[in-house]
Amino acid sequence: MLPDAPVALSLDVAWVLIASFLVASMQAGFTCLESGLVRSKNSINVAIKNLVDFCISSILFTLFGFQLMFGPSLDGLIGAFAPASYESMSPDRVAFFIFQLMFCGTAATIISGAVAERLRFIGYVMITVLSAGVIYPVVGHWIWNSAPSGELTGWLGAMGFLDFAGSTVVHSVGGWISLAAILILGPRIGRFGLGGHHIEGQNLPMAVLGVFLLWVGFFGFNGGSTLALNSLVPLIVANTALSGAAGGLIGLAISWYKRGHASVDAIINGTISGLVAICAGCNVVGEIGAILIGLGAGALAIGSVHLMEKLQIDDAIGAVPSHLVAGVWGTMAVALFASPEYLMGGSRLDQMQIQLVGIAAVGLFAFPLSYITFYAVNRFWPMRVSAEDERIGLNIAEHAATTSILDLVTQMDWQARTGDFSKHVDVENETEAHQIATFYNVVLDKFQLETGRRQEALERLTELASTDVLTGLPNRRVYFDLVRRSIASCNRNGRQGAVMYMDLDGFKKINDDMGHDAGDALLKQVALRLLSCVRESDLVARLGGDEFALLIGEVETLDALEHVAEKLIETVSEPFILKQGEANIGVSVGIAVFGGSRSAREDVETVIKRSDNAMYDAKLSGKGTWRVSEPELAPRPAEPSTDIKLDLTVSPSLAS
Amino acid sequence: MLPDAPVALSLDVAWVLIASFLVASMQAGFTCLESGLVRSKNSINVAIKNLVDFCISSILFTLFGFQLMFGPSLDGLIGAFAPASYESMSPDRVAFFIFQLMFCGTAATIISGAVAERLRFIGYVMITVLSAGVIYPVVGHWIWNSAPSGELTGWLGAMGFLDFAGSTVVHSVGGWISLAAILILGPRIGRFGLGGHHIEGQNLPMAVLGVFLLWVGFFGFNGGSTLALNSLVPLIVANTALSGAAGGLIGLAISWYKRGHASVDAIINGTISGLVAICAGCNVVGEIGAILIGLGAGALAIGSVHLMEKLQIDDAIGAVPSHLVAGVWGTMAVALFASPEYLMGGSRLDQMQIQLVGIAAVGLFAFPLSYITFYAVNRFWPMRVSAEDERIGLNIAEHAATTSILDLVTQMDWQARTGDFSKHVDVENETEAHQIATFYNVVLDKFQLETGRRQEALERLTELASTDVLTGLPNRRVYFDLVRRSIASCNRNGRQGAVMYMDLDGFKKINDDMGHDAGDALLKQVALRLLSCVRESDLVARLGGDEFALLIGEVETLDALEHVAEKLIETVSEPFILKQGEANIGVSVGIAVFGGSRSAREDVETVIKRSDNAMYDAKLSGKGTWRVSEPELAPRPAEPSTDIKLDLTVSPSLAS
Amino acid sequence: MLPDAPVALSLDVAWVLIASFLVASMQAGFTCLESGLVRSKNSINVAIKNLVDFCISSILFTLFGFQLMFGPSLDGLIGAFAPASYESMSPDRVAFFIFQLMFCGTAATIISGAVAERLRFIGYVMITVLSAGVIYPVVGHWIWNSAPSGELTGWLGAMGFLDFAGSTVVHSVGGWISLAAILILGPRIGRFGLGGHHIEGQNLPMAVLGVFLLWVGFFGFNGGSTLALNSLVPLIVANTALSGAAGGLIGLAISWYKRGHASVDAIINGTISGLVAICAGCNVVGEIGAILIGLGAGALAIGSVHLMEKLQIDDAIGAVPSHLVAGVWGTMAVALFASPEYLMGGSRLDQMQIQLVGIAAVGLFAFPLSYITFYAVNRFWPMRVSAEDERIGLNIAEHAATTSILDLVTQMDWQARTGDFSKHVDVENETEAHQIATFYNVVLDKFQLETGRRQEALERLTELASTDVLTGLPNRRVYFDLVRRSIASCNRNGRQGAVMYMDLDGFKKINDDMGHDAGDALLKQVALRLLSCVRESDLVARLGGDEFALLIGEVETLDALEHVAEKLIETVSEPFILKQGEANIGVSVGIAVFGGSRSAREDVETVIKRSDNAMYDAKLSGKGTWRVSEPELAPRPAEPSTDIKLDLTVSPSLAS
Repeated sequence: MLPDAPVALSLDVAWVLIASFLVASMQAGFTCLESGLVRSKNSINVAIKNLVDFCISSILFTLFGFQLMFGPSLDGLIGAFAPASYESMSPDRVAFFIFQLMFCGTAATIISGAVAERLRFIGYVMITVLSAGVIYPVVGHWIWNSAPSGELTGWLGAMGFLDFAGSTVVHSVGGWISLAAILILGPRIGRFGLGGHHIEGQNLPMAVLGVFLLWVGFFGFNGGSTLALNSLVPLIVANTALSGAAGGLIGLAISWYKRGHASVDAIINGTISGLVAICAGCNVVGEIGAILIGLGAGALAIGSVHLMEKLQIDDAIGAVPSHLVAGVWGTMAVALFASPEYLMGGSRLDQMQIQLVGIAAVGLFAFPLSYITFYAVNRFWPMRVSAEDERIGLNIAEHAATTSILDLVTQMDWQARTGDFSKHVDVENETEAHQIATFYNVVLDKFQLETGRRQEALERLTELASTDVLTGLPNRRVYFDLVRRSIASCNRNGRQGAVMYMDLDGFKKINDDMGHDAGDALLKQVALRLLSCVRESDLVARLGGDEFALLIGEVETLDALEHVAEKLIETVSEPFILKQGEANIGVSVGIAVFGGSRSAREDVETVIKRSDNAMYDAKLSGKGTWRVSEPELAPRPAEPSTDIKLDLTVSPSLAS
Repeated sequence: MLPDAPVALSLDVAWVLIASFLVASMQAGFTCLESGLVRSKNSINVAIKNLVDFCISSILFTLFGFQLMFGPSLDGLIGAFAPASYESMSPDRVAFFIFQLMFCGTAATIISGAVAERLRFIGYVMITVLSAGVIYPVVGHWIWNSAPSGELTGWLGAMGFLDFAGSTVVHSVGGWISLAAILILGPRIGRFGLGGHHIEGQNLPMAVLGVFLLWVGFFGFNGGSTLALNSLVPLIVANTALSGAAGGLIGLAISWYKRGHASVDAIINGTISGLVAICAGCNVVGEIGAILIGLGAGALAIGSVHLMEKLQIDDAIGAVPSHLVAGVWGTMAVALFASPEYLMGGSRLDQMQIQLVGIAAVGLFAFPLSYITFYAVNRFWPMRVSAEDERIGLNIAEHAATTSILDLVTQMDWQARTGDFSKHVDVENETEAHQIATFYNVVLDKFQLETGRRQEALERLTELASTDVLTGLPNRRVYFDLVRRSIASCNRNGRQGAVMYMDLDGFKKINDDMGHDAGDALLKQVALRLLSCVRESDLVARLGGDEFALLIGEVETLDALEHVAEKLIETVSEPFILKQGEANIGVSVGIAVFGGSRSAREDVETVIKRSDNAMYDAKLSGKGTWRVSEPELAPRPAEPSTDIKLDLTVSPSLAS
Repeated sequence: MLPDAPVALSLDVAWVLIASFLVASMQAGFTCLESGLVRSKNSINVAIKNLVDFCISSILFTLFGFQLMFGPSLDGLIGAFAPASYESMSPDRVAFFIFQLMFCGTAATIISGAVAERLRFIGYVMITVLSAGVIYPVVGHWIWNSAPSGELTGWLGAMGFLDFAGSTVVHSVGGWISLAAILILGPRIGRFGLGGHHIEGQNLPMAVLGVFLLWVGFFGFNGGSTLALNSLVPLIVANTALSGAAGGLIGLAISWYKRGHASVDAIINGTISGLVAICAGCNVVGEIGAILIGLGAGALAIGSVHLMEKLQIDDAIGAVPSHLVAGVWGTMAVALFASPEYLMGGSRLDQMQIQLVGIAAVGLFAFPLSYITFYAVNRFWPMRVSAEDERIGLNIAEHAATTSILDLVTQMDWQARTGDFSKHVDVENETEAHQIATFYNVVLDKFQLETGRRQEALERLTELASTDVLTGLPNRRVYFDLVRRSIASCNRNGRQGAVMYMDLDGFKKINDDMGHDAGDALLKQVALRLLSCVRESDLVARLGGDEFALLIGEVETLDALEHVAEKLIETVSEPFILKQGEANIGVSVGIAVFGGSRSAREDVETVIKRSDNAMYDAKLSGKGTWRVSEPELAPRPAEPSTDIKLDLTVSPSLAS
């Protein structure tokens, strides 16, 4: 039906494709591993970096990386700068292209973990371009490029350097770039120095899932590097399984021995290291070699972790130990454990020299190039996020990945800043933040309740201390206080004020005849009538018993005062209708003016005493009238001593 | 050994099976993607829907879907209604069946994300039955069914409609059904309108894991659609890789340009869209086409997201943009980017028309059928959960997936409702809720402490104000207050009460002779003796110094009162044994009766003064006896003025 | 290039390898399933157990397990104890080895879920060694070992026992060992008994992801068991898909019927059970058989869950129902549903007997051996963690996997224990604990604020009650209180103290002439001068108006007292420079000594009255001098009665 009927492909192509899928799934593995090993606040950033680097490296590798790596060699150093027009390739070659594309993605993504939690996203894009677009293809060219004849044309490959599946090409390259980046970036805040501490991953089960996804991926990574389903493949897969297992177990053993428990990070690092180290020689060693390579890799990686801690080099997920150190070890291990017939250099020692040359060449190319690039970039345009962004976390700082938790914290912060805790915080049900919000609201309620009770208790105490319980008028204490302030104020501004001392006439008789309740009711009505006679700015107080007082803050003329006094007297003298019958009383008023231009500055007691004396005069004058006190009046002679003495001394004359 | 020795199968069958496994793993991808992009409260619901729809679609596709899709065609419209008895199929056909079974599962599961967070579980089961049992097989028949000869027999396929791997058959069908469902369901609470906002996913790293699982799955989805390992496969896989990468990068670029940061959802949507769009033409385009298709898909999907937001159509995970829009685009893109020799319609324009017909036909079948079905069902039996259930979340509402968090919140709510915060909440260690419970308990403890202190302080203040410190008896203030209440009460109910005023005889001498400590000790003993003489309902108070008082709330006869008085006198007159020696004192008691039928209603001061006077009479009568006051007694003449004056005015006569 | 050019392998080998990868990915599935179904506090422990058991079983299976299982048979009972030197095997055999290695890992990891949340890590290592190193290889030998000729040499295999892919060999073996282990370990704390409850998983979406990973893995598990890509494979895969789906749906149906909702655990258990049960007969049944096997498996598993609950056997993730019960059912189901031609025993009944013998033999080997081993080990060395560790969780207890949450809880506990809440807790931003810490700090702030306000209010009340507002000196109340204490103290220790009563001479005139402000200013200066004359241990108080007092706690001689008095008089008589001009006043001092050997022990009122009287004498003597009171002085005759009476009774003589 189609123009060119598709032709069947070989099992080898199928194998390469399947291996490619497994390598592709290592991206999922790295995502789980890395986002599981960082803190929540950076987990999304790490995951999205993994996704983006795969996108970028795929495009770059297609645009020029593939030809740079596998194009016609320029003196064994570099391929061609040309796109991989796979449309025009043979299907077998396209499959090869796909396999290499996935490898390139792996090399790129190794770095994302090391630099996690402080690298700017744009910086990571730049690193990906450098690693996937330049360094990886060039190094790959040196080691893996071959002429159509099968002859290796890269200078290292031609020399006999053995790196079957990329311990050096992929892993150590990723490791070198990681190392350069973390040296430029510096350690995460809080990692070293005073109070510095190991930073725990947010989701270790997810990290373990990542390890398994990587492990299965490595079966394709190594098993597909034959580029054919040949007799080496089962051996390779078996070696991969054993080396990973051995790496994990040595990690377990060392951590148990050193720390007394099975450390998750040691087991994970050990396993990854075993898988990385076996890449180089997985086709040329047997079960013993695989196990030893795994053991060595795990031990070296864990040692490197400690060394880097001592050197205060901060690798967020251990990419340098697991990929660089284990990659170097695995590359050397080829010379140590390969069946002799596979050694390209003749003897083990010769092969070791070749391996060392290769390792060194790659390191001396990848590390300085990365370091200098990052250093230069960093000088003009910092690759590291601000300390504030690092504190907030890159999820929010770089991706605005706000969450219900953030909403909640924002609301709580606002309440704390404004001190307004009157409203519940509002978070949707069963979000991450909901339980915390529920709790917060419960606490708020309790707080309001508690604060309210305290407030009420204090107000009650204050009120008890300042109010006459019967009439609700201010009491003697408040009256004195306010008269004092009024005097001071008048003295300052030269205005005049006045106090009136009022004593009811005939109250005792009412009280005795009609009963205490009638007396109380009468006093309440008197209070209301007095209030009705004065301005809002004036103060009516009950001094005790049947004595009331009035404070007038500002007095214009004496006439006005007299007018008020007469109004008071008139008002009070009208009959009171009580439950117990009609009651008629009067009131005697004593007036004392204060302030103004008077030379003598009186204190509150003097002023009130003058009004008291004036009231007494009014009383003596026949009640139901008023008198104005003359200032500087001598104290009433009859005034008895009025020491407050403690209750204990009452009536000493009666004490036997 | 077995009856029919199994025969070897071809590489093509192996390829189809392997591709099936990859497609099956897309279920895992969708589970991660969708449960990661919804809120915690619905994450379990979404995941379990993914699992259940795979179970249901597998059974339905076996029971009749497969034959409906791939059975003998009825005029190119529909296949046969018959089960897929794979037991009797050739192994190749069984492999084909498996591959198609997985496709059907994918079409079904697309919908679960769009309708997430508000669809009833039973409603989802119904949707799955409709989509996997009816719509998908019918559309699939139109486009993909072929006679054994290889000739396409579905009407669209026969017309030359090109949809190699399902941009239309799988993705747009899923998208159309999703669209119908979300129009019927309406947006989630809080998504639009006042305060409406984007709803963040609960676990974006898991969503990214889902993207990678899907990506690898798409290699099988597209690569397996050849149904053979032929020369198209590598091209298809490479195109799939590039289109996904291009989609992801355009998502990154647009979000960066528009929002200033790399948006996780834009990158994810872009990638998925690129993978969806390439399905239709992955076998007929090259690298340029793949990249352009990916770029177009990503851009259109992100545009659609914004459009749907404007239209207030709420698609919880972007299924419509990523599957419907990108699917339509990918189907059209075949006409735009395919190598000309693959165009079935002759020219690009002709092919475009065919593609449009196909797209329209599928849309006009899938959307109205779904919409009408859902509308009808929804009228009689609401497909949406209640607002309350939506608020609570479908994990709990639909699956009773209660958690330690819920337990905790329940306990906290109970405390808040009852106001009983006396107990710690109890949650198991290191559960999700444990840290919150720990904190809550700490706060509770502080609260109890703080409340206790406040209570203590207030009680202390109150006690200071009401208790005689030496004897612990109520003081004068309390006594007056209670006598006042008692008088009021008696006045109301016509009963009688009495007060007794007691002054010790000879106390001063003891105090002077034996010292103050002896005096204090004596007063304490007196207090205890007085208490021993009265009923619990009577009140003994210390008025100050050596004066005590008794309030008897209810008096039957005067005799009883006299009896009490004599008992008091007798009791006090017994010798007191002090540390400093034996002491002998007496007590003079004055009694005043109040209340009852007495015409004059006295106030508290009058009553107490009467008792005081009576006591004075008793004192004058030779001490150690009692007297009863006559009511209406005139005040004692010798009573001095007892104004409380402020301290400042003391002894004016002494002031020089 | 290489010495022995690798030779191409068959598709069958490729198939076995691919199947191996799928089985390997079941490790990822178990990790997700098991860590998702346990509580957070144990999730890491479970995940790391899955990783470690895969490492251990890989090594053990290589070292001796493979030969034990597939080596030359010793009477059909056991193979050879020898390492699997795969280096020397044929490539096909290595692929077979790899496939079996992955199977062994699966058998081992089944157990980790059942025993989760209470088994010590070292105990799990021991269980893994027993299961992967001994029981699984031996049982595998019985059933699966075959001579190179293909003849089955294991005694059960030879007998005609049918277990194609391991319902018995893998799953029931894992189930039996699990059962033995959980019987020895006992249920988790809080699972049964009073308040016992179902323990919810921490991450059910992850568990569902695990189900899908397992499902895809089972395609390889069953599909690869042909060890060739032959005509059985598609049937096997289709059966696997259908049985899993049927199991999931019956789980859904039963839970919906029984509990009214779709239970996540029932659906998951049903699916796994369906996948487990189909293993034994996946090659010999058709679609009907597959569905019935799945339905039966799901139903039996869910029934078993309830039965185990009744028996209070605690299987943390349902390994016994899903693997043992479903495995036994699947093994029996071969006899029920297999096409007759596959029955090795002739009739279904005969086959059933053979199946029963096999099931029983495996059970009678695996269960008692495990049980006795665990029992013996457990007696000497408990396999279960301490209750405290179980409460804390195995993440922390076994792996020191401390988290920011733990840090926070530790800080909060410390604050609660010490009662020192003055500092914020310190947790890094956007860690898991950050939101809680934020909240805690907000609450702390509110608490400090609230506590501060309360404190302030109380202090203000106390101060108001004890301080003279004008001069800041202690007031009359405090003075009396301290004099009382001083008297008591002197009476106890025989020392002498003294009080001085000071009344200013001429103050009223200053106050009247120069104004109240001048008077106030004068009083303040007097207070300062008085303070300058006394020792720090002495107390100066203002009693009110122009009266001050001094308390001298310890007096050596009367001369010293006189010296102080003269100094006071001299100091006060110096001119005061006021804003309003110069003022000259004097002071009259009355001294009263108390305590010492005096026979009469005076109370505070008496002492102060004596000093008052002495001051009065000084006043009368011409002011500006001092007098010492004689003890036992009679009260001043002129002393008026000083009852504190309530305000209401003021000036009765004036009341009309």
